[in-house]
Amino acid sequence: MDHHAETPIYKQLADGIRSMVDSGAIQSGEKLPATRELAGHLGLNRTTVSAAYAVLEQSGILEGHVGRGSFIAKITRPQRTERTDWESLLPPLESAAPPTPKIQISFANSRPAQDAFPLASFRRLTKDVVDGPDAAQILQLGSPHGHPPLRRYLIEQAVASGIARSSDDLIITNGCQQALDLLARLFFGENRGAANGVAMEDPVYHGLVRVFARAGANVIGIPMDAEGIDPALLEEVLQQYRPRLLVVTPSFQNPTGATLSLERRKRIVGLAQRYGAVLVENDIYSELRYQGGPVPTLKELDESGNSILLRSYSKVSFPGLRVGWVIAPQPVIARLAEAKQLSDLHSDQLSQAVLLRFAESGELTRHLERTRVAGAEKLSCVLEACARFLPEGSRFTRPSGGMSLWVEMPAPLLTESLLRRATQRGVDFLPGHYFSARRPHARAFRLSFGGVSPAEIVQGLKILGEAACAELASFATAAPLEPVAALV
Amino acid sequence: MDHHAETPIYKQLADGIRSMVDSGAIQSGEKLPATRELAGHLGLNRTTVSAAYAVLEQSGILEGHVGRGSFIAKITRPQRTERTDWESLLPPLESAAPPTPKIQISFANSRPAQDAFPLASFRRLTKDVVDGPDAAQILQLGSPHGHPPLRRYLIEQAVASGIARSSDDLIITNGCQQALDLLARLFFGENRGAANGVAMEDPVYHGLVRVFARAGANVIGIPMDAEGIDPALLEEVLQQYRPRLLVVTPSFQNPTGATLSLERRKRIVGLAQRYGAVLVENDIYSELRYQGGPVPTLKELDESGNSILLRSYSKVSFPGLRVGWVIAPQPVIARLAEAKQLSDLHSDQLSQAVLLRFAESGELTRHLERTRVAGAEKLSCVLEACARFLPEGSRFTRPSGGMSLWVEMPAPLLTESLLRRATQRGVDFLPGHYFSARRPHARAFRLSFGGVSPAEIVQGLKILGEAACAELASFATAAPLEPVAALV
Repeated sequence: MDHHAETPIYKQLADGIRSMVDSGAIQSGEKLPATRELAGHLGLNRTTVSAAYAVLEQSGILEGHVGRGSFIAKITRPQRTERTDWESLLPPLESAAPPTPKIQISFANSRPAQDAFPLASFRRLTKDVVDGPDAAQILQLGSPHGHPPLRRYLIEQAVASGIARSSDDLIITNGCQQALDLLARLFFGENRGAANGVAMEDPVYHGLVRVFARAGANVIGIPMDAEGIDPALLEEVLQQYRPRLLVVTPSFQNPTGATLSLERRKRIVGLAQRYGAVLVENDIYSELRYQGGPVPTLKELDESGNSILLRSYSKVSFPGLRVGWVIAPQPVIARLAEAKQLSDLHSDQLSQAVLLRFAESGELTRHLERTRVAGAEKLSCVLEACARFLPEGSRFTRPSGGMSLWVEMPAPLLTESLLRRATQRGVDFLPGHYFSARRPHARAFRLSFGGVSPAEIVQGLKILGEAACAELASFATAAPLEPVAALV
Repeated sequence: MDHHAETPIYKQLADGIRSMVDSGAIQSGEKLPATRELAGHLGLNRTTVSAAYAVLEQSGILEGHVGRGSFIAKITRPQRTERTDWESLLPPLESAAPPTPKIQISFANSRPAQDAFPLASFRRLTKDVVDGPDAAQILQLGSPHGHPPLRRYLIEQAVASGIARSSDDLIITNGCQQALDLLARLFFGENRGAANGVAMEDPVYHGLVRVFARAGANVIGIPMDAEGIDPALLEEVLQQYRPRLLVVTPSFQNPTGATLSLERRKRIVGLAQRYGAVLVENDIYSELRYQGGPVPTLKELDESGNSILLRSYSKVSFPGLRVGWVIAPQPVIARLAEAKQLSDLHSDQLSQAVLLRFAESGELTRHLERTRVAGAEKLSCVLEACARFLPEGSRFTRPSGGMSLWVEMPAPLLTESLLRRATQRGVDFLPGHYFSARRPHARAFRLSFGGVSPAEIVQGLKILGEAACAELASFATAAPLEPVAALV
């Protein structure tokens, strides 16, 4: 006992006994000396010892039995083996376990075909990188802004092509998903005030809706036609909701494949300015154009220089290497860099260095040329197969690039029941509600053709068409007999 | 005009004029036809044309001059070239521009020495990986839980060593910073209720304080002594604040270098259980032990299986490759995987595959053995140099591993002014306030020795000692003359 310590003596004593119990020096069930006895032994007041015993009783370490004395509790720490009730402590899981039927042909994944990866050049360039003079620096702690040589290269490219202005800066992120996450937190984090709306296409990529909803934003859907956002409807949304952010995927939008015309782009840029919405351009598919010529980015058209542009190597090269980037006015990038540092310090440097080599060496351009040839074949194949196999009354978009198109089935068919039927025959896709910003899209689905072969496209759409016809037929026959069931 | 469209005619007309303005077909300053004239020309009601003009006036595109007619506004879209006022729209930057004096010897960075990286084996193993049969799969989109072979390996290791139980699962993150970010959002995100406290050591790693503060948590500091958290003081904190989370770095804590004894670990595990705090163990330095034997993790000691363990390859191998992992009960990992997918889909797979080879091949173990030999030399060197050069009254911790120790200067010296003096002589460190959870630590600083050579340690501490003595001497002489200044 230290009589000069700030901790009172009774507490020192209680702590001492507690640690003897913890270390096993006193076993559960053992009897402690009577307070008078221990007080005499230690040269303390009896009340001090009683106070220590009381503290231990309160903690459940000691049990007092009147007339028999104080015993170390049988189960000293009953709570210690108690399992936390995680389900009540944590927010509910959003997704149930994924369905696991045997799928032969999947139109569900919007990702490149694995067998088209240029493995030989990837191998050669990776070896160049690790054998190169920057290897040790790549392995050392880096910068939240990104691997300096890649960042320099991307800035130079963006300035040369007229996309970045002198007032812009650039940060490298783990693909565009992290860029969206950082932006969502920057614009909708703590104390960001009442203007908490983010407007985006509807239907739209699920991860875009969710990342803004998680940040506390109010997600507002903008209705689309086959050419993307309708500027007149956008103006209504901007007028009504005055969103803080407007997120647009102008080329080969996920899931519709729609591409905005130059005229619509100009209108959208003007509207964002007029209504004070910060324009975020999700431009990750534009290089995957199979028909027609390129259209300028919204960022290039925005004379104010206020737009935020997101790009990524994931869709045009290797999604397993997580490298995207943001080009935006300097004050935005400075804050994204702070947020990035707190999120994961910086992006992985080995992949940044490999992808820099891939781009600088011209291999990325060559890979893109091959990808466009293969994509054009798949696209014409999928459009032809849709026209041939889907039941009468189906509608589908006709994109000129990208990885997906959007199909709407005739009433009364619902895509969830079509999906059940299709998976039984080994074909799947993502149903429309998965892409909902606000509207349910219950008759629609996304058909992703980027990762499947032309032969699989034909076979898969034949099965989808048959499943849709069978589903429609079941309505036709079921309706008069079992009207209630048919309405399910 | 489409008289069958849902869009009213006046709106179609307004849109048409607007797009002619946008495309430059009508220039600003041009006069539009009178409503009667245009109505006759288009076969419309005059009121329809008036309504269209009114819409355009409201949007600022058209200007009506009584008696003269309607003109396209001179500056059609004055907002278009207006720059967004980012400073008022965005939260303030936390960090000012970093100071840039010329630093020869930096004790500021807690990172491994770059010249000790085993480049030869890194190069060989990376080539093995890219030449191997999994190359295409590594480049393809992966899983939020991590690269499956690495995840399997880490789970097997954790089960074999008794750290993971059958109720646990594992997710791979971008180093432990991302694990902290995901946990902070999981436990303190939207609607997480009133119990919003997180208790952690004070002083503590700055990124740990900030990531929880950003998530909206109330950060509570636990006072430490030379052996780390004092369990008696921890109990007071737990009693008073009932925090939801307790984050502990049990081995070679950043910044103090303190390591908790087995007895304290048992006490802390018991206290977390007793007070219902979820225990998060930040165990990223424990393999960097230069003296004495290993101590079990809190996770191993926690019989309830409730603890969450964070580990990382960053500190023990290459910080530039961003790979850490979390071992925790399955319900926690399931939610972290959802959060991870929204944050950046998954971690980079090339580095995961390379680090798996590094661990499996035994090269990591060999690298760690060399690191421990070098670390032991640096540690004894830094302790000796502290004793020799720091002014009388200085106190410093004596860690048995890790990368840092914690120095407290005698009053009235403040480390901010010492830092100014030291940087003028080419030496820097991170001052105590940088590690503040609650307390200011104005006389303390972190001395990181992991990235500097023994010769630099001696030279740097000699300069620090001289700067501290000079600073103290300036107080001694200034005090009688300028008492106010001396109190600053």
